[in-house]
Amino acid sequence: MKFCSECAQPVSLLIPPDDNRPRFVCEHCGTIHYQNPKMVIGSIPLWDADGESRVLLCRRAIEPRYGYWTLPAGFMENDETTDEAAMRETMEEAGARVELHELFSLLNVPHVHQVHMFYRATLLDLDYSAGVESLEVRLFSESEIPWNEIAFPTVSHTLKQFFADLNRIKSEGGCYRLHTRDLRKPMRQDT
Amino acid sequence: MKFCSECAQPVSLLIPPDDNRPRFVCEHCGTIHYQNPKMVIGSIPLWDADGESRVLLCRRAIEPRYGYWTLPAGFMENDETTDEAAMRETMEEAGARVELHELFSLLNVPHVHQVHMFYRATLLDLDYSAGVESLEVRLFSESEIPWNEIAFPTVSHTLKQFFADLNRIKSEGGCYRLHTRDLRKPMRQDT
Repeated sequence: MKFCSECAQPVSLLIPPDDNRPRFVCEHCGTIHYQNPKMVIGSIPLWDADGESRVLLCRRAIEPRYGYWTLPAGFMENDETTDEAAMRETMEEAGARVELHELFSLLNVPHVHQVHMFYRATLLDLDYSAGVESLEVRLFSESEIPWNEIAFPTVSHTLKQFFADLNRIKSEGGCYRLHTRDLRKPMRQDT
Repeated sequence: MKFCSECAQPVSLLIPPDDNRPRFVCEHCGTIHYQNPKMVIGSIPLWDADGESRVLLCRRAIEPRYGYWTLPAGFMENDETTDEAAMRETMEEAGARVELHELFSLLNVPHVHQVHMFYRATLLDLDYSAGVESLEVRLFSESEIPWNEIAFPTVSHTLKQFFADLNRIKSEGGCYRLHTRDLRKPMRQDT
């Protein structure tokens, strides 16, 4: 941020009175430009048939991570709820209609100023199709998931926890639980 | 938003290519200025003593809702996790040290572009004190809570659900669960 979005004068990075961290401040009109984390919301669309549980993944047609697989997810928009964001992204990226269930995972990614959330969902039919941000959309059983080609750690972690819960519920009963985790920037390996 | 924060030229409200909603776009440098919901994160600090369960509330020293009571909470900052935000706000507003537990409530407030989240917490000692944004800080048992003087519906809802879970657990056992709710703008009563 270089200029004030209210009056077009240059902004300064300084700690406002009664605050404790640097903000972009316009010393001309007094506006403080706060910057806050964003939410990335998605779903885990499940299709149960012929004794097999499969999850719908999208292969990304955009950067970052072009060509890698992800759960349908994207930035939450103003004027919508987290549930609405999850259903909208599932429709936009995978052309998929789902019944949404409860929040399954909440993952902090503080170094990119993001919080990712994934909702459990049941796919309502097989009429899905790739949206403009996806190259293809496909159902995967646990053994078919391309673990080395998953776009983001928040998606790998959510899928692993999801299948762990699913397998436990199938064998022992019980229910899904909320999984929370902080995914910090990996330490660089100096060689 | 009136001007581009990157080049100071006036912005236009228009739907960018491959998008489906209006954004503030700079037609001079091409920057798209996305606006997204913000997270308000807080805690429910519990103090159990002499057979009574009490929760720490803060009386607001700032607008909106000056003089009304709230759970310690505030906007999540960049570079922190949701847990860290909850503990920081509890310290800043109530001067209170807590052990943080799991996420208790997630409340969508779409008309103000906010998602509120409250974590269960145990107060570690009674050395709390009002921060600069609080007039006073006090422990309340369920029967003492000033329901008509609670600052925000997300706080009332969280407190009601919290004491309902607490009473159920005391009488029947079991555990707390995640409470989610959408709190939409109340319809205006035309008289």
